[in-house]
Parts: sequence; structure tokens; C-alpha cells
Amino acid sequence: MKWKGEIIGAGMTRFGKFPYQTVSDLAHPAILSALTDADISTRNIQAVYCGSVYLGVAAGQRILRDLGMTGIAIYNIENACSSGSTAFREALIAIEAGVYETVLVLGVEQLSRLGKIVLPLNSDDREVAQGMIMPALYAMRAQRHMFDYGTTIEQLAQVAVKNRRNGSLNSYAQFQTPCTMEEVLHSKPVADPLTLNHCCPTGDGASAVVLTATERARRSSRSSVKVEASVLTSGLYETGFRNMSSAEISIRASKEAYEQAGLGPKDVSLAEVHDAFTIAEILYYEALGFCAPGEGGAFVQSGATAIGGQIPVNPSGGLLARGHPLGATGVAQLVEAYDQLKGRAGDRQVANARVALAHCTGGGISGLDHAACTIHILSN
Amino acid sequence: MKWKGEIIGAGMTRFGKFPYQTVSDLAHPAILSALTDADISTRNIQAVYCGSVYLGVAAGQRILRDLGMTGIAIYNIENACSSGSTAFREALIAIEAGVYETVLVLGVEQLSRLGKIVLPLNSDDREVAQGMIMPALYAMRAQRHMFDYGTTIEQLAQVAVKNRRNGSLNSYAQFQTPCTMEEVLHSKPVADPLTLNHCCPTGDGASAVVLTATERARRSSRSSVKVEASVLTSGLYETGFRNMSSAEISIRASKEAYEQAGLGPKDVSLAEVHDAFTIAEILYYEALGFCAPGEGGAFVQSGATAIGGQIPVNPSGGLLARGHPLGATGVAQLVEAYDQLKGRAGDRQVANARVALAHCTGGGISGLDHAACTIHILSN
Repeated sequence: MKWKGEIIGAGMTRFGKFPYQTVSDLAHPAILSALTDADISTRNIQAVYCGSVYLGVAAGQRILRDLGMTGIAIYNIENACSSGSTAFREALIAIEAGVYETVLVLGVEQLSRLGKIVLPLNSDDREVAQGMIMPALYAMRAQRHMFDYGTTIEQLAQVAVKNRRNGSLNSYAQFQTPCTMEEVLHSKPVADPLTLNHCCPTGDGASAVVLTATERARRSSRSSVKVEASVLTSGLYETGFRNMSSAEISIRASKEAYEQAGLGPKDVSLAEVHDAFTIAEILYYEALGFCAPGEGGAFVQSGATAIGGQIPVNPSGGLLARGHPLGATGVAQLVEAYDQLKGRAGDRQVANARVALAHCTGGGISGLDHAACTIHILSN
Repeated sequence: MKWKGEIIGAGMTRFGKFPYQTVSDLAHPAILSALTDADISTRNIQAVYCGSVYLGVAAGQRILRDLGMTGIAIYNIENACSSGSTAFREALIAIEAGVYETVLVLGVEQLSRLGKIVLPLNSDDREVAQGMIMPALYAMRAQRHMFDYGTTIEQLAQVAVKNRRNGSLNSYAQFQTPCTMEEVLHSKPVADPLTLNHCCPTGDGASAVVLTATERARRSSRSSVKVEASVLTSGLYETGFRNMSSAEISIRASKEAYEQAGLGPKDVSLAEVHDAFTIAEILYYEALGFCAPGEGGAFVQSGATAIGGQIPVNPSGGLLARGHPLGATGVAQLVEAYDQLKGRAGDRQVANARVALAHCTGGGISGLDHAACTIHILSN
């Protein structure tokens, strides 16, 4: 199926640590950049879908007031690391229903004001209470993948090297310097075998896209980006043994997304995936069908997922280099997909980009792979 | 218009202060009660829309896991006091789009674990920073209404007397004892002229409704409740003089809701309105067109809004008696509307109830009446 909403503009600001700015300072340039890109004004926006995790009560309304975007429908949506992409899905559904014609989707977060935190912080959760915070969980996944499939630490590190190289080509990235294999292997230990450079940074930032009804997009001379699939699901509860090297929720979501789009992994020109840790990207190669289970390590080592490779993954630099201000990430992936599909991604442009896949997953809950996973497939 | 979604089941638990329960303890009975009422099982639910304000990351997923409701789409929605009703609107839009056939809407909150707080707590907001917290804001509104229209403190207090009487007939209410005019007038001062009994309590609770596509509802022998209007808007920013005795956002939202439904205030059999303070209910009589501007005080005094009156308002007891666990309130209003329209509201049944209106508004932001307002009009 094709959804009845199309993206006609996208914008974001450089991710990083900006504790002295307000949330509005972060969000306004991203919003105005997306509206300018769509060649519309604030008055054309009928509703705003704001994805964030830690911004408190009525975040969207507080941000939009000073842009004069008042008296409209504003929705605040939270879904852990999938907050921004869930907001996009909600916007898409509303356009599908014909409730709005043109809407803005905003992803925004400011983690630098929260102090030194390890996410997620559901301290009531029994696994979290035992120390199963995200870096520990992914370290276990890495250990298991290495044990089961002979994946090497250098293969894991290659994900960081690749994404940091991509980030050095992206003026929106938090990290714009490449790093070497040696630097990844010898950075500060976090949770064995993961060192600091295997883990995405926390940070602040905002990203925005404008969605409009296909009918309206058709009336415009501007080219738009279509939505071939939108999927949201929550993890299945598994008691007892849990396969740590198989990304249950992402496997299920991608199957549904490909069916919805009538496309397969071979049709994907580029993918933005949720590389919160190097091992995560490898698990998602396999979950998304880019390579067979167990082959993710060799796949990245072969260069297949570099820009210019068979299926470039995270050309933006991904979470590892662009950064991961939770609510902003899902929309930033769509901004990158949009730029790639419009052929305006500059030095990191993927040649002949026709189909882009964006994948977000997050939220640690005992017994689930993750709380929420979204997949969107876009085409030009 | 009629929306393509209909309510086929509703349930809630008694509101109150339950700091020793978990959020799941609060939510599960409400969910199961709504599903039982709809005569369906957890397996029939394709998506859940969870409205809450202070429950942290992935609240819906954490609550639903232990009911085995995993592997489905779960959305967490925040819109201050309108969180639950915004979640309902999102669910309705998704059914309108044909994305799901049957969904659950959950409103849930647990304020008693947060300690002694005054809501809302956006301490960055310049009005809040100067002491314009909700009780202060509504005290100013009361002062202005009394000055402009000669509204009396006894008329304000009559709202509390009426709603506490209604609450005494509602086994879900936090306060199930009536109170006298004398008790309201002489309870602890909060913000002049409002005493404690002019203010809704904080508390904990959960409420749920099941929505299904009209087509599916038609195939069932069970009667359902239709949605005639759904509106969400944010407040208009007003610089300089602000009319404190006119509820800008609610006036605009109700106008849109009546137009959408093709109905007027005279068609409404009963209304659940956002009586966070006694003066608020009086402002909303006027905003919703139940009486002319300035006449709200005399209107409640006349008995017009009591059960058995011309237009019963808050037969459930409203926020003043049923309580106000933020995210749960909007859905609880729909539960009451559903029960009334099904003729099963017991001792507080409104005779010949055909059309019910539910109104939520909240979120304090400088320069806006409120951050978000929802209105839903339902019919049987």
C-alpha cells in the first residue's frame, strides 16, 4: 500500500550538548527549516505531533507558542526511543483519515540538562533493578553473538568506524570527526566487550518534517517523498530462555513493513537503523534481512553497509555519530531518508537512492526485546 | 458528521489515593472491566492508546505486559489534563483511517506517589514562576467573574455542593460523601475566594473504553455509543489584557464541536466538564453555551445543572468529587457518558439521556487560556 501522506519538507539542527539553550531554542530552527523547505508558513499547519521523552507537560504547546503556532491541535507522544517515529506514524494516520491536510512532526529532546543518567531509568523494572541497563544488555547481546557466530570485536568496532566516517560528512552530526579501529578498541571500557566508542552519545537536538495529503502534494510542482509502509509494535513477552542475539521485535516489525510495502530487503537503497550500540546495528542487519542471521559481523567487515556498498546503513552517521537525543532521533532518520531520496545529501549521498528504510526501537522492559519498534519505508 | 468508531465497552476503578499499589494494580481492573463490558478478550485489541502525564517512559507497555497484551501497537500520549481524552481522539482517528478495527483507550495516573505537588509544575514558565499556579489562576478568575457579573461565593460553592452530592451516588468517586454549603464556605482557605472544597483533589486511578469500527459494531447485537464530534485545540496566545472570566479555548473548541456534530447546546442531555475548581464549571456553562456569559452563577443556583435539571453537568461528581488523576480523567468522563447513554448510571441516571458532551482542558502556559482542550460529543 501507499499511505495517503507524503513528506514535503524536512529540517533539523546539529545534535550535541546544549545545556544553556532552552528546548524552544533547539526546536525552533528545526521547525522553521522544515517549513521553509516545504515552502509553507506556520499558518498552513493544522496539527503538530511532538515526540519526546523527558520534556514534561505539554512540551509541544510550550515550544510552539513562541512561533505563533497556537489555536491548533497539538499532540505529545512518547514511546521511548521510538517517540519521534511514533509521532510521525500518528500524523500519517490522521492524514490517512482525512482529519488534517498538512501537519508538522517534531522530534525534540534535551538530555544534557538531566545530569549524568543512564537510560532508561525505570528503576521499578526488575531487570533494570539488577543492573540490566542498556549498555549491559547490549554487552550481553554482543557476547552471545560472538559466542554463537564467531563475530569478532573488530567487526563490531567496524560499525563505529563506518558510522563515525559517515558522521564526518554530516553537518548535523554530534560527532563530525572520524575515528580509527584502534581508537574504538582502546576507548574507555563500558560493559565488556563494549568500549565507549561502541555506544551512542546522549545529547540534545530537534528534527522536523512536514507531511501533507497526497492530493495536495499532487497539486504542487514540488516533488515529495511517499510512505510505503508504517509499522509500530511492542515486544512479545518471552518467559524463560531469551535469544539475546535475535532482535525479536525488529524481525516481526520488518516482516510486517515489507509486506505492507510489497517490497523486500533487496529493494532498499539505504537504511537508517537504531545503532545505539555497535552490536545493535549488526543485529538489525540480520533482523531487517540485509544478511542472514549470524552473518552481520562479516557483512559490515565486507563494506556492504558503507556508503557505496550494497546497502548503505546509517549514511547520516546513525546514533553513534549523529547522536541520540531520544525523541529527536526517529524524525532525524526521516530527515536523512528525505534528503537521500531527494538526492541532496551532499558528500554522503547514496547513488540512485529510491527506497529508504527507517528503524527505531527502544524502551527496556523485563522479558521484552524492547517496548516499541517502528519501521517506515519511504520512496521517491 | 458521525465518526466511524463507536464505544462498545467502558470500565474504571474507584479514584482515590493508593500510593502502595503499582500503576498496573490501578490499571488492570479498569482494562479488564472495559473488555468484559465489550464482551471481547485481550486478543481482540489491535492497539492501545494510553493517556497519562507523570508515568514515565513506555507506561502503556509496562502496564500491558502483565496482561499478555504484547506484540501490538501501543501509543503513549500526553496533553496535560486532556491526556486521556487526546488518547481517545487518537484512537478514533486511527479507526477512521481504517488502520485498526478494535482498540483500547486507557487513562491512568498515580499522583499520590509524587508527594505534595501543585500542578502544573513547569517552573520555567514565567507566570508559574511568579506564583500563577492553577489555584491562583482560578482564584483570579473567580474574583473577576464576581466583579464583572455579581456572581456570589454561595453560587460558586453551589457547584461543589452539587458535584459532591452527585459523587455520593457514584461508587467510582474519590469523595462519596456529600457536603453542605457551610462546609464549602468554611473549609481551609486556598486562594481567596477559593477554599479547599472549591478545588478538586489529586489522586490515582484508571479508566478505559473499547472503541470499534462502526462496521464491526453493526455486526454485533450489542448496542454501542456513537461519536458525533471530536475536537482538540491549543489555546490562542493573547498578549496584554486577557479576559479572565471568558474561557477562550473552551469557547472555540465547543463552537467547532457543535458544528461538527450538527448539534447545539440545547441538544445536550448531560455534560461532563472540567470542574477543577468551582469557578471553572461556571465558566464552562457559559463557554459551552448552556447559559449566557455572566449567568453561570445564577444558572447553578437555579438547579438547572443538577441531576433532574435542564442540563445536568457532572452527574459523575466531576473532578471535584470523582477526583482528578490527570490522565485518567478524560477517559473517566467518557465512561460516565457511556454509562449514562446506556441508561445504566443507577441512582445518578439522567432521564432520557440521548446526547452527552465531555470537555477537558488543561496545561498552564503563560499567555494561553490553556495548553489543550478536547471536546467529545457522544450519542446513543
